[in-house]
Amino acid sequence: MTRGVRSVILSAAMTTSEQNFDQLRHQPRVLLGPGPSNLHPRVFQAMSSPVLGYLDPDFLVIMDDTMVLLRRLFQTENEMTITLPGTGMAGMEAAICNVVEPGDEVIVGIHGFFGQRMAEIVERHGGKAIRVEVEFGQVVRADQIESALKSNPKAKMVAVVHGETSSGIGQPLEQIGQLVRQQDKLFLVDTVCSLGGADIPVDRYLIDICYSGGQKCIGGPAGISCITLNDRAMRVIESRSRPVDTWYLDLLLIRKYWFADRVYHHTAPGPLLFALREALRLIEEEGLHDRFARHQQCGDLLKTGLTDLGLELFGDPANRLPMLTCVMIPGGVDDAAVRQRLLRGYGIEIVGGFGPLKGKAWRIGLMGYGCSERNVHYLIAALREILAR
Amino acid sequence: MTRGVRSVILSAAMTTSEQNFDQLRHQPRVLLGPGPSNLHPRVFQAMSSPVLGYLDPDFLVIMDDTMVLLRRLFQTENEMTITLPGTGMAGMEAAICNVVEPGDEVIVGIHGFFGQRMAEIVERHGGKAIRVEVEFGQVVRADQIESALKSNPKAKMVAVVHGETSSGIGQPLEQIGQLVRQQDKLFLVDTVCSLGGADIPVDRYLIDICYSGGQKCIGGPAGISCITLNDRAMRVIESRSRPVDTWYLDLLLIRKYWFADRVYHHTAPGPLLFALREALRLIEEEGLHDRFARHQQCGDLLKTGLTDLGLELFGDPANRLPMLTCVMIPGGVDDAAVRQRLLRGYGIEIVGGFGPLKGKAWRIGLMGYGCSERNVHYLIAALREILAR
Repeated sequence: MTRGVRSVILSAAMTTSEQNFDQLRHQPRVLLGPGPSNLHPRVFQAMSSPVLGYLDPDFLVIMDDTMVLLRRLFQTENEMTITLPGTGMAGMEAAICNVVEPGDEVIVGIHGFFGQRMAEIVERHGGKAIRVEVEFGQVVRADQIESALKSNPKAKMVAVVHGETSSGIGQPLEQIGQLVRQQDKLFLVDTVCSLGGADIPVDRYLIDICYSGGQKCIGGPAGISCITLNDRAMRVIESRSRPVDTWYLDLLLIRKYWFADRVYHHTAPGPLLFALREALRLIEEEGLHDRFARHQQCGDLLKTGLTDLGLELFGDPANRLPMLTCVMIPGGVDDAAVRQRLLRGYGIEIVGGFGPLKGKAWRIGLMGYGCSERNVHYLIAALREILAR
Repeated sequence: MTRGVRSVILSAAMTTSEQNFDQLRHQPRVLLGPGPSNLHPRVFQAMSSPVLGYLDPDFLVIMDDTMVLLRRLFQTENEMTITLPGTGMAGMEAAICNVVEPGDEVIVGIHGFFGQRMAEIVERHGGKAIRVEVEFGQVVRADQIESALKSNPKAKMVAVVHGETSSGIGQPLEQIGQLVRQQDKLFLVDTVCSLGGADIPVDRYLIDICYSGGQKCIGGPAGISCITLNDRAMRVIESRSRPVDTWYLDLLLIRKYWFADRVYHHTAPGPLLFALREALRLIEEEGLHDRFARHQQCGDLLKTGLTDLGLELFGDPANRLPMLTCVMIPGGVDDAAVRQRLLRGYGIEIVGGFGPLKGKAWRIGLMGYGCSERNVHYLIAALREILAR
């Protein structure tokens, strides 16, 4: 190493020396957006557990634990129930790209932004997306899927989003699941927004592939996702004519790491896995149905509170999600100013609308640990003060 | 919700009730494998900072900070210097798949397992990998790359691994960088193993694309990676004839989130970003060259200690990495038994050999916070005790 190099680096550092990066000391937030949600203290604690090698015997037990806990959460007996080393969007891509080969047709039920994204990912991987699209704020009807299945007998899969984070609407699944199974297709459901906050019994609903993110109703950190696939889905993936184009999310390679072979694929994100496992333990302790009921009660309380403030809720009243509420911004009220006041004055995050609702609606999340009556009352009180000015 | 569903779930839980998952209480390890490495207490502390929304003003500042700190670490002025929401292998795939279009030729210098993997990923994305392969334990020679460039004038990129975690050998880069630039190709370098522990001045070495993982010499957590691309590389990506097949790692979409537009792509893994930022602050405080010197000194001390024990080091002596040492297992010594004794008796993790060295060598890492003379002395003492039995 020459002196010359060192002085170059020092002088480069000097030019940016005004940026002296301090220790992080931001204030805690009350996170009432579409995720990430607040973390239970025990989840933080688990995240800081000692680091383990990715083949350490204790680490392998933690992976096995997590699979059992995830199966209970997905209400499935699927052996292939694992985490993925990426966010919920990695789950979406893995679920699609492992199934879709060039030319394959996939029927995508679209009732918002994330359904659109599914269709885009199908096309990225050379598939043909057959879009069954409904008005924003509505749900895809079973008869629409039925007729799409009739018109496209070669379709390999039907994909829908359960909780549309963009509209606050929950897609009914049971009837579609039966239709898809009758035609011997695969049924893929996105539950990034809703798993852990609503009853989605994967096996009973005849869902073949289901994924979610860590940071919403599950109450874990962002950056890790989970996925479950039944044998029908795995057989389709095993019989591909060529490997998946995406190496990082190749489920057959990842499976070799999670099961008997323990073949290295990636260095597992230990802290995220430890944290997710603790979040799953908290779900176990609460009980699935008590947890779903808590999300429903808090969601209802929020909707009542917003209506009492004179605000109008968005979308099909029969299918509003408990964990994500989309509410219209009253005329004359400045979207960004209100959200900034909530954040700076009250430490509360809510977020703006998406797509057709940009600037016209707010999206309010009640997810996991952050889903509490206390948070609802605080938000309603804050909104009342701000809107009264 | 019917009573029937609830009882089904309760009975499903009963069948696995023997698995009562306790709080995590595993013992700390001295991690001397190929990563993850031990984390500095301040990195744990930062990882547990309050959760922030992915568009929170404070979060955007943390992203901006991280970019500045990463540029200093990569020794680059590249604007496009960001983290990716996945492990080092996500960095590898992003670096390749964003450049490679079907039919594109990429010259891959292969001196171990990770070079092989690069070639495989090129092919997954429809490219043609032109393999320049050398014996395991050696490095790719500049004249080999020169002749490959001559024979394959249409090649779009040359890719090599700097620190081969599988062999403990470091690939010289400077001369290859010049050859590649002379032919106006892109030069891609994997520094997953080595960035933060060895001097790799990206701009001065004429590297166009460079990535690393969080959990090795950078001293951050696993699950997040970082990548830098110069304008030459970004222009190639911007002028693709069609979008990348992999949506999750599409750098043009991810760029829109990191820069002015701040368009949602994924929910950033907050805790990992907070932790990485703190690891980068620790690097700043130590100083790049003092840090490189520490890795070199500890690596040398380890190699001396192993040699004094009568063990033989693997690979080209001129190019052994400081942060990862590959050492042959003496005849008659049981690989797995020694590693288990190290782990159970001393809390030390080292790992076994890869590919041709499976069962024949150990790989010992000294990375980031775990790279200390104390750890070297402890390991040598433990090995001396175990091998004397």
